[in-house]
Amino acid sequence: MNSWGSGFSTDQVFLVIFFRSTLDDSKLIIDDSTASRYFGVTLMIFLGFGYLRAFLKAYGLGAIGFTMLIASLGMQWSMILESLARKAELKVDSSALLHADLGVAAVLVSFGAVIGRISPTQIVMLVLLELPVYTINKVFLIHQFDTSKHVRDGGSTIVVHVFGAYFGLAAATVLGPAVKDRLKCSSYQSDIFSLIGTMFLWMFLPSFVAVEQATPDLQSKAIVNTILALLTSTVTSFGLTQILQDGKIGTRAVQNATLAGGVTIGATASIVGPFGAGVLGIMAGALSTVAFAHSSMFKSVDSCGIHNLHGLPGLLGGLFSIVSPVFYNDTGLAPFEQMVALASTLMIALLSGACCGVAMKAIEQLHDDKDLRTAAASIGLNPTDLRIEPYSGSVRKSVLLCV
Amino acid sequence: MNSWGSGFSTDQVFLVIFFRSTLDDSKLIIDDSTASRYFGVTLMIFLGFGYLRAFLKAYGLGAIGFTMLIASLGMQWSMILESLARKAELKVDSSALLHADLGVAAVLVSFGAVIGRISPTQIVMLVLLELPVYTINKVFLIHQFDTSKHVRDGGSTIVVHVFGAYFGLAAATVLGPAVKDRLKCSSYQSDIFSLIGTMFLWMFLPSFVAVEQATPDLQSKAIVNTILALLTSTVTSFGLTQILQDGKIGTRAVQNATLAGGVTIGATASIVGPFGAGVLGIMAGALSTVAFAHSSMFKSVDSCGIHNLHGLPGLLGGLFSIVSPVFYNDTGLAPFEQMVALASTLMIALLSGACCGVAMKAIEQLHDDKDLRTAAASIGLNPTDLRIEPYSGSVRKSVLLCV
Amino acid sequence: MNSWGSGFSTDQVFLVIFFRSTLDDSKLIIDDSTASRYFGVTLMIFLGFGYLRAFLKAYGLGAIGFTMLIASLGMQWSMILESLARKAELKVDSSALLHADLGVAAVLVSFGAVIGRISPTQIVMLVLLELPVYTINKVFLIHQFDTSKHVRDGGSTIVVHVFGAYFGLAAATVLGPAVKDRLKCSSYQSDIFSLIGTMFLWMFLPSFVAVEQATPDLQSKAIVNTILALLTSTVTSFGLTQILQDGKIGTRAVQNATLAGGVTIGATASIVGPFGAGVLGIMAGALSTVAFAHSSMFKSVDSCGIHNLHGLPGLLGGLFSIVSPVFYNDTGLAPFEQMVALASTLMIALLSGACCGVAMKAIEQLHDDKDLRTAAASIGLNPTDLRIEPYSGSVRKSVLLCV
Repeated sequence: MNSWGSGFSTDQVFLVIFFRSTLDDSKLIIDDSTASRYFGVTLMIFLGFGYLRAFLKAYGLGAIGFTMLIASLGMQWSMILESLARKAELKVDSSALLHADLGVAAVLVSFGAVIGRISPTQIVMLVLLELPVYTINKVFLIHQFDTSKHVRDGGSTIVVHVFGAYFGLAAATVLGPAVKDRLKCSSYQSDIFSLIGTMFLWMFLPSFVAVEQATPDLQSKAIVNTILALLTSTVTSFGLTQILQDGKIGTRAVQNATLAGGVTIGATASIVGPFGAGVLGIMAGALSTVAFAHSSMFKSVDSCGIHNLHGLPGLLGGLFSIVSPVFYNDTGLAPFEQMVALASTLMIALLSGACCGVAMKAIEQLHDDKDLRTAAASIGLNPTDLRIEPYSGSVRKSVLLCV
Repeated sequence: MNSWGSGFSTDQVFLVIFFRSTLDDSKLIIDDSTASRYFGVTLMIFLGFGYLRAFLKAYGLGAIGFTMLIASLGMQWSMILESLARKAELKVDSSALLHADLGVAAVLVSFGAVIGRISPTQIVMLVLLELPVYTINKVFLIHQFDTSKHVRDGGSTIVVHVFGAYFGLAAATVLGPAVKDRLKCSSYQSDIFSLIGTMFLWMFLPSFVAVEQATPDLQSKAIVNTILALLTSTVTSFGLTQILQDGKIGTRAVQNATLAGGVTIGATASIVGPFGAGVLGIMAGALSTVAFAHSSMFKSVDSCGIHNLHGLPGLLGGLFSIVSPVFYNDTGLAPFEQMVALASTLMIALLSGACCGVAMKAIEQLHDDKDLRTAAASIGLNPTDLRIEPYSGSVRKSVLLCV
Repeated sequence: MNSWGSGFSTDQVFLVIFFRSTLDDSKLIIDDSTASRYFGVTLMIFLGFGYLRAFLKAYGLGAIGFTMLIASLGMQWSMILESLARKAELKVDSSALLHADLGVAAVLVSFGAVIGRISPTQIVMLVLLELPVYTINKVFLIHQFDTSKHVRDGGSTIVVHVFGAYFGLAAATVLGPAVKDRLKCSSYQSDIFSLIGTMFLWMFLPSFVAVEQATPDLQSKAIVNTILALLTSTVTSFGLTQILQDGKIGTRAVQNATLAGGVTIGATASIVGPFGAGVLGIMAGALSTVAFAHSSMFKSVDSCGIHNLHGLPGLLGGLFSIVSPVFYNDTGLAPFEQMVALASTLMIALLSGACCGVAMKAIEQLHDDKDLRTAAASIGLNPTDLRIEPYSGSVRKSVLLCV
C-alpha cells in the first residue's frame, strides 16, 4: 500500500489538477533556443544528477532510478505549483517545462544528502514537501515584486543551490547520521559511471544558468561566463587536490569540485566579465576542493557531499552578488536586497528542511517492512547480495576515504 | 566470405545506387530545428537503443556494436528506399537523414526480439529485408494518398513501433525460443549501462515523435505532450512495479516501462491536451509494467521484451487514435482509416516478419561455422570465456527473473 | 610543488592575461546554430575523447579525468593564443570557445599516444607546448593570407588530426616504448565504457567538421557529407574486421575505425557529393581497420592507436584534398598549396612533437617521486591495487591482442 499510496496515487491527484490545465497555445511554439535549452537542462537533470550519484557502488541503480522518479514526479508538481504561484492559472507551455527543471534540480540537490537512507515513500514525500517551499521562496524573492529593485539570481545560485543544499542538510541531520559501511563507498567502476554525471552537469550547467536570464543578450553572456568559470574551477580542482592529498588526485574532487564554478557564478553570470568569471571559478573550485578534503561540517550526514558542491559554493556566489556593485557598474543589483534574499533563503531552507526531516522520520516509524527502508534495497538489489570483492589495499583505503 | 558477402559488399551495392544520388542543394540548408532534431533522434537511435539492450551481461558489446552496424547500414538503405518511394528519384538532404532514422528505429525494435541469437550475416539480412516492407507500408499508409482523409501517425506509433515489434516477434517465433542461460541475464553493472539507454530514449522520444508532424506548431505541441506522457508513465511504472513485485522495484520495468508513454502517444501527440497526454502516459506505463511482470505472450522468444515496450503500448496508441474523435474535436482523424491502417500494419508486419524469420533460418542452416552463430560470439567475446561470478543469492534470483 | 607549479599556477598566469581580455559584446549573442554546434563539439571533446580512451582498464579514471583537465586548461590557453594570433587583441566570444575546442582536440589526439605513461605535470606541459605550435601552424596555413588561393581545411583534417597525431607520435617515440602489461589491456566492462566515447565522437564529428566552414550552406553540406562518410566507414569496418580476424569482430576496430570516415572527409567535406562522401568513408574505414589489424608502425609507442585512427585517415584526407580538383569542378582548392600545407604540417608536427617529448623526458628525470610518474597512479588508483581477475581464456587472449 505504501507505494500505491505514494507514487502512484499522487499522480492520480496531479491528474485531477491537470484536468483543469490547458496547453498555452499562444506560447507553445518552442523556438529553437527554448528547445535546445530544455534538452540541455533536462539532460543535466536526468543524466547529470543521476549518474553523478552512482559513485556509491551499492546504490548505483537506486541513484539513477530514483533520479528518474524524482524528476518525473517533481516536474509535474513543479509545473502546477509554479504556474499557480506566478500566473494564478494552470497553463503548460515549453517554458513551464524549463522552470519545472529548476525546481527538480533543487530537490535533487537535497536528495544527495539523504541518498541511500530513505525509502521510496520518503522520496515521494521529499518531492511533495520541498517543492511548495521552493516555489514560494523563489516566486516571492525573484518574481513577485516587479519593481526595479527586485532580487537578481538569474543562474539560480541562491534559489536552487543554496536552498536545495541546506534543505537537504537539515533533513539529513534530523534523520541522523548515515551508517558507514563498505557498501556506501565507491568502486573503480562506479567512479567511472559517476564521471558520466559530472560530464553532463559540466556540459549543461551553462544552459541551466541561462534559463532565468531576462534577455537573449544576458543569456549569451551568462552562458559564456559560466563556461569560463567551469574551465577555471576544473583546473583549480585538479591542481589543489594533488597538493591537499600528497600528490594523489582525489576522485571525489574531480567528480564534484570541478563543477563548483558553475554553481557559484549563477547569481552574477550576466554581470561579470571574463576576468571576474575566471576568478569566481578559481575561488569556487578551491573552496569546494578544500571542503571535500578537509571539511567536517555535515560530514556524518551528507551522503554525497552536497555541502561541498552546492552549499558552500552557493553561499560564495550569493555573497559575491552582494558585493559585486563594488567591482562592476550598472549591475542592477541592490546589495541589501540580495543580502536579505540570501539570508532568508538560508533560514527558510533550514527550517522547512528540518520539518521535512521530522515528517520523513515519522513515516519511517510507521513502516513495518524494514527491508524496504532503504531505496537501494527496494530497487532489485539487496546490499548483502552484492558480490564480495577481494579486499586489496585500494579497497581498504577507499573505505577510509569514503564520506 | 559470409561477412564480406553481407556487410561489406552490400555497401558496395549501395554505393552504385548512391552514385546516381544527388545532394538536394535546394533543401540542404539545415535550419536549426532540423539539425537539433536530427542530433536528438540519432542520439536516441545510437545511444538509446544500443545501451538499453546492454542489460544482457554477455551481449553488451554485441548489443551496442550491432546497433551501430544496423543504424549505419539501415540509414543508407532507408534513404535510398524512402527517396525512391516518395519522390521516385534519389536525393539526399537533411530531412532524408531524419526519415532514415525512423526506418532504422523500426529495425532496432525488431532486433530487440532476436538479439543474442542471430549472427552478423542474419543481422544484415534483417536490415535488408525489413526496410523495404517498412517503407512500402509507411509510404502507402501515410504519405501516398494526398487526400484530406489520409491516415495520421505523426509520432510513428503504428508505422514504427507496432510494425517493428510484430515483425520482430514473428521472426523470433520462427527462429524458435532462445536458449535460457545465465549469460543471457543481467548483472548489476549491465543494468546501470542499460539505464544510459533508457535515459537517451526518454530524453529524445519527444524529438522522435515530432519528426513527421506537419507544421512547427504541431511539432511543438507533440513535443510538450510527449514529455507529459513520459512523466506520467515513469511515475506509474515506479508505483506499479512495487505493487506487482512485493515492494521491490523491477529493474526491467524502470528500464523499459517508463518509456511506454512516449510510444503510445505518438499517433495522437499533436491532438490531445495535457490531460489526455497524462492519461495516455498512465495507461501506457501501467500496461507495460503489468506486461513486464506477468505477460507470458512471446515470453519464450522475445529477448528484450519488445512486446511489452513497443508492441502492446503501440497497439494502445493505435486504438486510441481510432477513438480519439470521441474525445476531441477537429482531430482530422478518420476512425475507419486509422483502424484499417493499424490492422493492415499488424498483418503485414506479422507476415513479412515470419518470411524474414524463415529466410534467416535458411541461412543459418547453410552456415558451417557454428561458433559464429551468435552475434555475441563474433564480437570478441566467447560467452564461455566470460568471467564466472561467485554465485550469490542475487545472481540466483536474477536467473529466475531473467526473461 | 610540482602540481602547484603546473596546473594551478599556470591558471594564475592565464588569469593575468585574461585580466586584459574583454567579452566581445558585439559578437556575444550566441545564435542557435553556434550554441548547438558549441554543445555538440564540446560533448565530443569531453565525453567522446574521454570515454573512448577508457578502454584501458587500469586507466579509465585517468583517461576521463585528464581529458577534463586537458580540455579545461587547453581551452583557456587556446582562446588566448588564437585571439592574439588572429586578431592581435584579447576578446572572448562564443566563436572563440568553438575554436578553442578545435585546439583542444589536437592536444587530445596527441594525448592518445602517451596516455598512461605521463604524469600530470607532463600532461600540463603537453598542453602548454603543443597549442602554440598548433595555433601558429593553423593560422599561418589557413587564416593568415586572405588571398583567393589560401589553403582549405574546413573540417580540420590536416590542422587537427594530422598535426595532433604526428605531434603525439613523435613525442611518444622520444619517451620510448610503453611497458606492456596486463593492466594496459582492456576488459569487457572497459570496452563498453569506451563505446560511449565512440558514440559521442560519431554523433558530433559532423558538428566538428562544420566549425570552420565559411558559410551556412557549406556547413550544411559538410554536416550531411560527414554523416554519409561515417555511415559507410562504420559498415566497412564491421565487414573488414571479420575478414581480417577469422570471423571475429575486433572491438578496437569497432571503437575506432568506424570513426575514420569523419576524420578523412574533413578537408573536402564541403566539396564532395554523396557518392564521394561514401567512397571516402569506405576508403577511410578500410585503411583504419587494416591498420588496427596489421600495422606495426608506431605500434610499440602508440597507446591508443591514434596512428590508425587520426594519422593515416588524416593523411588520406589531406591527399584527397590535393587530387580532388580532378574529380570536382569549382572546388576552390589549389593542389600545390594543399600539398605544401599537408607536408609542412607533417614536418612541423614531427619536429615540435619530438622537442616536446625531449622536454617531457627532461622533467621526468627531475621528478623524485617515482610513484607519481604515471597519470593512472596519481588519480586514486595504484595499478597494483587493481582487483586481480581470474585468468580465463579470454583474458589471456586479450593480453595478446592488446596494442
